[in-house]
Amino acid sequence: MKIAVLGTGMVGHALAGKFVALGHEVMMGSRESGNPKGVEWARTSGPLAHAGSFAEAAARSELLVNATPGTVSLAALAEAGEANLNGKILLDVSNALDPTSGFPPSLTVCNTDSIAESIQRTFPEVRVVKSLNTVSAPVMVDPGMLPGPHDIFMAGNDETAKTTVSGLLQAFGWAPDHIRDLGGLDAARGLEMWLPLWLRIFMQQPHGKMFNIGIVSE
Amino acid sequence: MKIAVLGTGMVGHALAGKFVALGHEVMMGSRESGNPKGVEWARTSGPLAHAGSFAEAAARSELLVNATPGTVSLAALAEAGEANLNGKILLDVSNALDPTSGFPPSLTVCNTDSIAESIQRTFPEVRVVKSLNTVSAPVMVDPGMLPGPHDIFMAGNDETAKTTVSGLLQAFGWAPDHIRDLGGLDAARGLEMWLPLWLRIFMQQPHGKMFNIGIVSE
Repeated sequence: MKIAVLGTGMVGHALAGKFVALGHEVMMGSRESGNPKGVEWARTSGPLAHAGSFAEAAARSELLVNATPGTVSLAALAEAGEANLNGKILLDVSNALDPTSGFPPSLTVCNTDSIAESIQRTFPEVRVVKSLNTVSAPVMVDPGMLPGPHDIFMAGNDETAKTTVSGLLQAFGWAPDHIRDLGGLDAARGLEMWLPLWLRIFMQQPHGKMFNIGIVSE
Repeated sequence: MKIAVLGTGMVGHALAGKFVALGHEVMMGSRESGNPKGVEWARTSGPLAHAGSFAEAAARSELLVNATPGTVSLAALAEAGEANLNGKILLDVSNALDPTSGFPPSLTVCNTDSIAESIQRTFPEVRVVKSLNTVSAPVMVDPGMLPGPHDIFMAGNDETAKTTVSGLLQAFGWAPDHIRDLGGLDAARGLEMWLPLWLRIFMQQPHGKMFNIGIVSE
Protein backbone atom coordinates (compact mmCIF):
# COMPACT_ATOMS: atom_id res chain seq x y z
CA MET A 1 0.00 0.00 0.00
CA LYS A 2 1.11 3.59 -0.57
CA ILE A 3 0.98 5.39 2.76
CA ALA A 4 1.51 9.03 3.70
CA VAL A 5 2.74 9.70 7.21
CA LEU A 6 2.11 13.38 7.97
CA GLY A 7 4.51 14.54 10.64
CA THR A 8 8.24 14.15 11.23
CA GLY A 9 8.30 13.74 15.01
CA MET A 10 8.88 10.60 17.07
CA VAL A 11 5.45 9.22 16.25
CA GLY A 12 5.85 9.89 12.54
CA HIS A 13 9.25 8.20 12.50
CA ALA A 14 8.02 5.16 14.41
CA LEU A 15 5.04 4.63 12.14
CA ALA A 16 6.81 5.40 8.88
CA GLY A 17 9.65 3.06 9.80
CA LYS A 18 7.25 0.27 10.70
CA PHE A 19 5.26 0.64 7.49
CA VAL A 20 8.47 0.41 5.45
CA ALA A 21 9.56 -2.64 7.44
CA LEU A 22 6.21 -4.22 6.54
CA GLY A 23 6.83 -3.56 2.84
CA HIS A 24 4.65 -0.52 2.26
CA GLU A 25 5.77 2.45 0.21
CA VAL A 26 5.82 5.47 2.50
CA MET A 27 6.18 9.20 2.05
CA MET A 28 6.85 11.20 5.19
CA GLY A 29 5.12 14.53 4.75
CA SER A 30 5.99 17.86 6.27
CA ARG A 31 5.30 21.55 5.67
CA GLU A 32 8.31 21.96 3.36
CA SER A 33 9.24 19.24 0.90
CA GLY A 34 12.89 19.77 1.82
CA ASN A 35 12.33 19.31 5.57
CA PRO A 36 15.68 18.00 6.88
CA LYS A 37 14.12 15.40 9.17
CA GLY A 38 11.99 13.98 6.38
CA VAL A 39 14.86 14.01 3.87
CA GLU A 40 17.21 12.33 6.34
CA TRP A 41 14.63 9.66 7.17
CA ALA A 42 14.07 8.89 3.49
CA ARG A 43 17.83 8.80 2.81
CA THR A 44 18.48 6.25 5.57
CA SER A 45 15.37 4.07 5.33
CA GLY A 46 15.69 2.25 2.02
CA PRO A 47 14.00 2.39 -1.36
CA LEU A 48 10.43 2.33 -0.01
CA ALA A 49 11.01 5.52 1.99
CA HIS A 50 10.33 8.97 0.55
CA ALA A 51 9.92 12.50 1.83
CA GLY A 52 7.84 15.37 0.54
CA SER A 53 5.39 18.09 1.37
CA PHE A 54 2.05 17.30 3.01
CA ALA A 55 0.40 17.73 -0.41
CA GLU A 56 2.92 15.53 -2.24
CA ALA A 57 2.60 12.81 0.38
CA ALA A 58 -1.20 12.93 0.37
CA ALA A 59 -1.51 13.02 -3.42
CA ARG A 60 0.44 9.80 -4.01
CA SER A 61 -0.98 7.74 -1.14
CA GLU A 62 -3.97 5.49 -0.61
CA LEU A 63 -3.96 5.82 3.16
CA LEU A 64 -2.83 8.70 5.37
CA VAL A 65 -1.69 8.87 8.95
CA ASN A 66 -2.06 12.12 10.87
CA ALA A 67 1.01 12.13 13.10
CA THR A 68 1.14 15.90 13.48
CA PRO A 69 0.40 17.53 16.85
CA GLY A 70 -3.35 17.83 17.30
CA THR A 71 -2.99 21.58 17.72
CA VAL A 72 -1.81 21.96 14.10
CA SER A 73 -3.52 18.99 12.43
CA LEU A 74 -6.27 20.97 10.70
CA ALA A 75 -3.68 23.35 9.25
CA ALA A 76 -1.50 20.45 8.09
CA LEU A 77 -4.43 18.72 6.43
CA ALA A 78 -5.49 21.96 4.75
CA GLU A 79 -1.97 22.17 3.29
CA ALA A 80 -2.26 18.54 2.19
CA GLY A 81 -5.29 19.65 0.19
CA GLU A 82 -8.84 18.40 0.45
CA ALA A 83 -8.76 16.95 -3.08
CA ASN A 84 -5.74 14.84 -2.09
CA LEU A 85 -7.59 13.52 0.98
CA ASN A 86 -11.12 12.86 -0.22
CA GLY A 87 -12.24 9.24 -0.16
CA LYS A 88 -9.07 8.11 1.60
CA ILE A 89 -8.65 6.60 5.04
CA LEU A 90 -7.02 8.92 7.55
CA LEU A 91 -5.68 7.20 10.63
CA ASP A 92 -5.57 9.97 13.23
CA VAL A 93 -3.10 9.24 16.02
CA SER A 94 -2.84 12.82 17.27
CA ASN A 95 -3.29 14.37 20.69
CA ALA A 96 -4.12 18.02 21.24
CA LEU A 97 -1.73 18.81 24.06
CA ASP A 98 -1.63 22.54 24.72
CA PRO A 99 2.05 23.56 24.47
CA THR A 100 1.38 26.75 26.44
CA SER A 101 -0.10 25.03 29.50
CA GLY A 102 3.04 23.79 31.23
CA PHE A 103 3.59 20.19 32.28
CA PRO A 104 1.58 18.09 32.38
CA PRO A 105 -0.21 19.83 29.53
CA SER A 106 -3.96 20.28 29.26
CA LEU A 107 -5.89 19.65 26.05
CA THR A 108 -6.93 22.31 23.55
CA VAL A 109 -10.12 20.38 22.71
CA CYS A 110 -12.09 17.92 24.81
CA ASN A 111 -15.33 16.77 26.42
CA THR A 112 -17.90 17.74 23.77
CA ASP A 113 -15.52 17.59 20.81
CA SER A 114 -12.25 16.00 19.73
CA ILE A 115 -9.51 16.58 17.19
CA ALA A 116 -10.69 13.54 15.25
CA GLU A 117 -14.23 14.91 14.99
CA SER A 118 -12.99 18.36 14.00
CA ILE A 119 -10.99 16.74 11.19
CA GLN A 120 -14.05 14.77 10.11
CA ARG A 121 -16.24 17.90 10.11
CA THR A 122 -13.69 19.89 8.12
CA PHE A 123 -13.05 17.11 5.60
CA PRO A 124 -16.36 15.24 5.41
CA GLU A 125 -15.24 12.98 2.55
CA VAL A 126 -12.23 11.67 4.48
CA ARG A 127 -12.71 8.36 6.29
CA VAL A 128 -11.27 9.22 9.69
CA VAL A 129 -10.31 6.47 12.14
CA LYS A 130 -8.92 7.36 15.56
CA SER A 131 -6.46 4.92 17.06
CA LEU A 132 -3.00 4.52 18.63
CA ASN A 133 -3.05 7.95 20.34
CA THR A 134 -3.35 6.21 23.72
CA VAL A 135 0.18 4.77 23.73
CA SER A 136 3.78 5.88 23.21
CA ALA A 137 5.28 5.59 19.74
CA PRO A 138 7.41 2.50 20.55
CA VAL A 139 4.34 0.67 21.90
CA MET A 140 2.23 1.63 18.88
CA VAL A 141 4.41 -0.33 16.49
CA ASP A 142 5.65 -3.07 18.82
CA PRO A 143 2.96 -4.08 21.31
CA GLY A 144 4.89 -7.25 22.05
CA MET A 145 7.46 -5.17 23.94
CA LEU A 146 5.08 -5.21 26.93
CA PRO A 147 4.54 -8.37 28.96
CA GLY A 148 1.00 -9.67 29.12
CA PRO A 149 -2.16 -8.71 27.27
CA HIS A 150 -2.94 -5.03 26.75
CA ASP A 151 -5.37 -3.13 24.60
CA ILE A 152 -5.64 -0.65 21.77
CA PHE A 153 -8.79 1.24 20.82
CA MET A 154 -10.36 2.37 17.58
CA ALA A 155 -13.21 4.76 16.74
CA GLY A 156 -14.68 5.85 13.42
CA ASN A 157 -17.83 6.18 11.37
CA ASP A 158 -16.68 4.06 8.40
CA GLU A 159 -16.71 0.30 9.05
CA THR A 160 -14.53 -0.67 6.10
CA ALA A 161 -11.98 1.97 7.08
CA LYS A 162 -11.86 0.48 10.58
CA THR A 163 -11.39 -2.98 9.08
CA THR A 164 -8.39 -1.70 7.09
CA VAL A 165 -6.91 0.01 10.15
CA SER A 166 -7.46 -3.13 12.21
CA GLY A 167 -5.46 -5.04 9.61
CA LEU A 168 -2.58 -2.57 9.93
CA LEU A 169 -2.71 -2.83 13.74
CA GLN A 170 -2.59 -6.61 13.49
CA ALA A 171 0.43 -6.32 11.19
CA PHE A 172 2.05 -4.21 13.94
CA GLY A 173 1.47 -7.12 16.32
CA TRP A 174 -1.78 -6.13 18.05
CA ALA A 175 -3.90 -9.19 18.84
CA PRO A 176 -7.34 -9.05 17.16
CA ASP A 177 -9.20 -9.55 20.46
CA HIS A 178 -7.27 -6.65 22.00
CA ILE A 179 -8.19 -4.19 19.25
CA ARG A 180 -11.28 -2.64 20.81
CA ASP A 181 -13.72 -0.98 18.43
CA LEU A 182 -15.48 1.66 20.53
CA GLY A 183 -17.94 2.64 17.81
CA GLY A 184 -18.46 5.99 16.09
CA LEU A 185 -15.90 8.75 15.86
CA ASP A 186 -17.40 10.59 18.84
CA ALA A 187 -15.73 7.91 20.96
CA ALA A 188 -12.50 9.72 20.07
CA ARG A 189 -13.40 12.15 22.86
CA GLY A 190 -12.73 9.43 25.38
CA LEU A 191 -9.55 8.33 23.62
CA GLU A 192 -8.17 11.87 23.59
CA MET A 193 -9.28 12.54 27.19
CA TRP A 194 -7.25 9.53 28.30
CA LEU A 195 -4.09 11.60 27.84
CA PRO A 196 -4.21 13.51 31.14
CA LEU A 197 -4.37 10.22 33.07
CA TRP A 198 -1.74 8.66 30.79
CA LEU A 199 0.56 11.61 31.54
CA ARG A 200 0.11 11.19 35.31
CA ILE A 201 0.83 7.47 35.13
CA PHE A 202 3.84 8.24 32.92
CA MET A 203 5.15 10.67 35.56
CA GLN A 204 5.02 7.89 38.18
CA GLN A 205 6.64 5.24 35.98
CA PRO A 206 10.30 4.32 36.37
CA HIS A 207 12.22 6.42 33.84
CA GLY A 208 11.80 5.24 30.27
CA LYS A 209 9.64 2.24 31.09
CA MET A 210 6.94 1.87 28.46
CA PHE A 211 3.42 0.95 29.56
CA ASN A 212 -0.15 0.55 28.43
CA ILE A 213 -3.43 -0.56 29.94
CA GLY A 214 -5.18 -3.86 29.61
CA ILE A 215 -8.88 -4.32 30.23
CA VAL A 216 -9.51 -6.85 33.00
CA SER A 217 -13.10 -8.08 32.74
CA GLU A 218 -15.31 -10.59 34.52
CA MET B 1 -13.53 4.47 62.70
CA LYS B 2 -16.64 6.67 62.43
CA ILE B 3 -17.31 7.26 58.75
CA ALA B 4 -19.84 9.45 56.96
CA VAL B 5 -20.92 8.32 53.52
CA LEU B 6 -22.56 11.28 51.80
CA GLY B 7 -24.95 10.04 49.13
CA THR B 8 -27.62 7.34 49.00
CA GLY B 9 -27.09 6.03 45.47
CA MET B 10 -25.46 2.78 44.33
CA VAL B 11 -21.99 4.01 45.18
CA GLY B 12 -23.04 5.21 48.63
CA HIS B 13 -24.73 1.91 49.37
CA ALA B 14 -21.75 -0.15 48.21
CA LEU B 15 -19.25 1.84 50.27
CA ALA B 16 -21.42 2.19 53.38
CA GLY B 17 -22.17 -1.53 53.35
CA LYS B 18 -18.52 -2.43 52.96
CA PHE B 19 -17.43 -0.12 55.80
CA VAL B 20 -20.04 -1.71 58.10
CA ALA B 21 -18.87 -5.19 57.07
CA LEU B 22 -15.35 -4.13 58.03
CA GLY B 23 -16.55 -3.06 61.50
CA HIS B 24 -16.72 0.71 61.06
CA GLU B 25 -19.57 2.81 62.38
CA VAL B 26 -21.23 4.48 59.40
CA MET B 27 -23.80 7.18 58.91
CA MET B 28 -25.25 7.48 55.45
CA GLY B 29 -25.92 11.16 54.86
CA SER B 30 -28.49 12.76 52.61
CA ARG B 31 -30.20 16.13 52.20
CA GLU B 32 -33.05 15.23 54.56
CA SER B 33 -32.35 13.22 57.70
CA GLY B 34 -35.52 11.19 57.02
CA ASN B 35 -34.46 10.23 53.48
CA PRO B 36 -36.22 6.88 52.85
CA LYS B 37 -33.19 5.27 51.17
CA GLY B 38 -30.91 6.20 54.05
CA VAL B 39 -33.42 5.12 56.69
CA GLU B 40 -34.05 1.80 54.96
CA TRP B 41 -30.34 1.13 54.60
CA ALA B 42 -29.75 1.83 58.31
CA ARG B 43 -32.73 -0.34 59.31
CA THR B 44 -31.48 -3.37 57.37
CA SER B 45 -27.72 -3.06 57.88
CA GLY B 46 -27.17 -3.80 61.56
CA PRO B 47 -26.19 -1.81 64.63
CA LEU B 48 -23.22 -0.04 63.03
CA ALA B 49 -25.43 1.51 60.34
CA HIS B 50 -27.09 4.89 60.80
CA ALA B 51 -28.77 7.49 58.61
CA GLY B 52 -28.96 11.25 58.94
CA SER B 53 -28.57 14.55 57.22
CA PHE B 54 -25.32 15.54 55.56
CA ALA B 55 -24.56 17.74 58.59
CA GLU B 56 -25.41 15.02 61.14
CA ALA B 57 -23.27 12.48 59.30
CA ALA B 58 -20.34 14.87 58.93
CA ALA B 59 -20.47 16.12 62.53
CA ARG B 60 -20.14 12.65 64.09
CA SER B 61 -17.54 11.20 61.72
CA GLU B 62 -13.75 11.18 61.53
CA LEU B 63 -13.63 10.46 57.82
CA LEU B 64 -16.06 11.38 55.06
CA VAL B 65 -16.76 9.91 51.67
CA ASN B 66 -18.25 12.10 48.95
CA ALA B 67 -20.49 9.68 47.06
CA THR B 68 -22.84 12.37 45.76
CA PRO B 69 -22.95 13.17 42.04
CA GLY B 70 -20.11 15.54 41.21
CA THR B 71 -22.61 18.04 39.86
CA VAL B 72 -24.10 18.56 43.36
CA SER B 73 -21.10 17.77 45.56
CA LEU B 74 -20.26 21.36 46.48
CA ALA B 75 -23.88 21.98 47.50
CA ALA B 76 -23.96 18.77 49.54
CA LEU B 77 -20.73 19.66 51.33
CA ALA B 78 -22.00 23.17 52.02
CA GLU B 79 -25.04 21.59 53.69
CA ALA B 80 -22.72 19.30 55.65
CA GLY B 81 -21.16 22.47 57.01
CA GLU B 82 -17.57 23.60 56.77
CA ALA B 83 -17.07 23.37 60.54
CA ASN B 84 -18.10 19.69 60.40
CA LEU B 85 -15.58 19.03 57.63
CA ASN B 86 -12.48 20.95 58.65
CA GLY B 87 -9.41 18.89 59.42
CA LYS B 88 -11.08 15.66 58.28
CA ILE B 89 -10.21 13.40 55.40
CA LEU B 90 -12.67 13.52 52.53
CA LEU B 91 -12.45 10.62 50.12
CA ASP B 92 -13.96 11.99 46.91
CA VAL B 93 -15.25 9.23 44.64
CA SER B 94 -17.51 11.47 42.54
CA ASN B 95 -17.79 12.03 38.82
CA ALA B 96 -19.27 15.15 37.29
CA LEU B 97 -21.41 13.58 34.58
CA ASP B 98 -23.67 16.17 32.98
CA PRO B 99 -27.23 14.78 33.29
CA THR B 100 -28.45 17.10 30.53
CA SER B 101 -25.96 15.90 27.90
CA GLY B 102 -27.57 12.61 26.81
CA PHE B 103 -25.75 9.30 26.77
CA PRO B 104 -22.88 8.88 27.05
CA PRO B 105 -22.75 12.04 29.18
CA SER B 106 -20.06 14.70 29.00
CA LEU B 107 -18.43 16.21 32.08
CA THR B 108 -19.44 19.50 33.72
CA VAL B 109 -15.82 20.17 34.75
CA CYS B 110 -12.59 18.95 33.18
CA ASN B 111 -9.18 19.63 31.63
CA THR B 112 -7.97 22.59 33.71
CA ASP B 113 -10.02 21.80 36.82
CA SER B 114 -11.75 18.90 38.54
CA ILE B 115 -14.50 18.35 41.07
CA ALA B 116 -11.91 17.25 43.62
CA GLU B 117 -9.93 20.48 43.20
CA SER B 118 -13.08 22.60 43.39
CA ILE B 119 -13.94 20.88 46.70
CA GLN B 120 -10.42 21.52 47.96
CA ARG B 121 -10.55 25.20 46.97
CA THR B 122 -13.97 25.69 48.59
CA PHE B 123 -13.00 23.86 51.79
CA PRO B 124 -9.26 24.48 52.15
CA GLU B 125 -9.05 22.82 55.60
CA VAL B 126 -10.47 19.53 54.32
CA ARG B 127 -7.95 16.84 53.40
CA VAL B 128 -9.30 15.76 50.02
CA VAL B 129 -8.20 12.48 48.45
CA LYS B 130 -9.55 11.44 45.05
CA SER B 131 -9.88 7.73 44.45
CA LEU B 132 -12.25 4.94 43.34
CA ASN B 133 -14.13 7.12 40.82
CA THR B 134 -12.55 5.13 37.98
CA VAL B 135 -14.48 1.90 38.64
CA SER B 136 -18.05 0.71 39.17
CA ALA B 137 -19.36 0.46 42.73
CA PRO B 138 -19.13 -3.35 42.93
CA VAL B 139 -15.47 -3.24 41.83
CA MET B 140 -14.64 -0.45 44.31
CA VAL B 141 -15.40 -2.65 47.30
CA ASP B 142 -14.52 -6.06 45.86
CA PRO B 143 -11.57 -5.83 43.49
CA GLY B 144 -11.13 -9.60 43.76
CA MET B 145 -14.24 -10.05 41.62
CA LEU B 146 -12.08 -9.41 38.54
CA PRO B 147 -9.56 -12.00 37.34
CA GLY B 148 -5.96 -10.89 37.21
CA PRO B 149 -4.21 -7.77 38.48
CA HIS B 150 -5.84 -4.40 37.97
CA ASP B 151 -5.24 -0.93 39.34
CA ILE B 152 -6.78 1.82 41.41
CA PHE B 153 -5.50 5.39 41.57
CA MET B 154 -5.22 8.01 44.26
CA ALA B 155 -4.47 11.76 44.22
CA GLY B 156 -4.25 14.31 47.01
CA ASN B 157 -2.13 16.99 48.61
CA ASP B 158 -2.03 15.45 52.12
CA GLU B 159 0.31 12.47 52.43
CA THR B 160 -1.08 11.16 55.72
CA ALA B 161 -4.61 11.37 54.33
CA LYS B 162 -3.50 9.28 51.35
CA THR B 163 -1.92 6.76 53.72
CA THR B 164 -5.24 6.44 55.56
CA VAL B 165 -7.17 6.06 52.31
CA SER B 166 -4.67 3.49 51.09
CA GLY B 167 -5.34 1.51 54.27
CA LEU B 168 -9.07 1.54 53.55
CA LEU B 169 -8.48 0.46 49.95
CA GLN B 170 -6.32 -2.41 51.16
CA ALA B 171 -9.09 -3.42 53.57
CA PHE B 172 -11.41 -3.50 50.53
CA GLY B 173 -9.00 -5.95 48.92
CA TRP B 174 -6.85 -3.70 46.73
CA ALA B 175 -3.26 -4.94 46.57
CA PRO B 176 -0.76 -2.33 47.84
CA ASP B 177 1.29 -2.43 44.63
CA HIS B 178 -1.85 -1.80 42.58
CA ILE B 179 -2.85 1.31 44.52
CA ARG B 180 -1.19 3.96 42.35
CA ASP B 181 -0.46 7.29 43.99
CA LEU B 182 -0.48 9.82 41.15
CA GLY B 183 0.66 12.74 43.30
CA GLY B 184 -1.11 16.01 44.06
CA LEU B 185 -4.82 16.61 43.79
CA ASP B 186 -4.48 18.16 40.33
CA ALA B 187 -4.01 14.58 39.12
CA ALA B 188 -7.75 14.23 39.80
CA ARG B 189 -8.24 15.90 36.40
CA GLY B 190 -6.92 12.78 34.74
CA LEU B 191 -8.93 10.50 37.00
CA GLU B 192 -12.15 12.35 36.24
CA MET B 193 -11.36 12.60 32.51
CA TRP B 194 -11.07 8.82 32.38
CA LEU B 195 -14.85 8.59 32.58
CA PRO B 196 -15.62 9.27 28.90
CA LEU B 197 -13.35 6.39 27.88
CA TRP B 198 -14.71 4.20 30.70
CA LEU B 199 -18.23 4.83 29.41
CA ARG B 200 -17.29 3.84 25.85
CA ILE B 201 -15.63 0.63 27.04
CA PHE B 202 -18.68 -0.03 29.25
CA MET B 203 -20.96 0.33 26.20
CA GLN B 204 -18.94 -2.34 24.37
CA GLN B 205 -18.80 -4.75 27.29
CA PRO B 206 -21.12 -7.77 27.47
CA HIS B 207 -24.15 -6.69 29.54
CA GLY B 208 -23.42 -6.41 33.24
CA LYS B 209 -19.82 -7.58 33.04
CA MET B 210 -17.69 -5.57 35.42
CA PHE B 211 -14.25 -4.43 34.30
CA ASN B 212 -11.28 -2.28 35.16
CA ILE B 213 -7.88 -1.54 33.71
CA GLY B 214 -4.53 -2.90 34.72
CA ILE B 215 -1.27 -1.18 33.91
CA VAL B 216 1.01 -3.39 31.84
CA SER B 217 4.56 -2.10 32.09
CA GLU B 218 7.99 -3.12 30.82
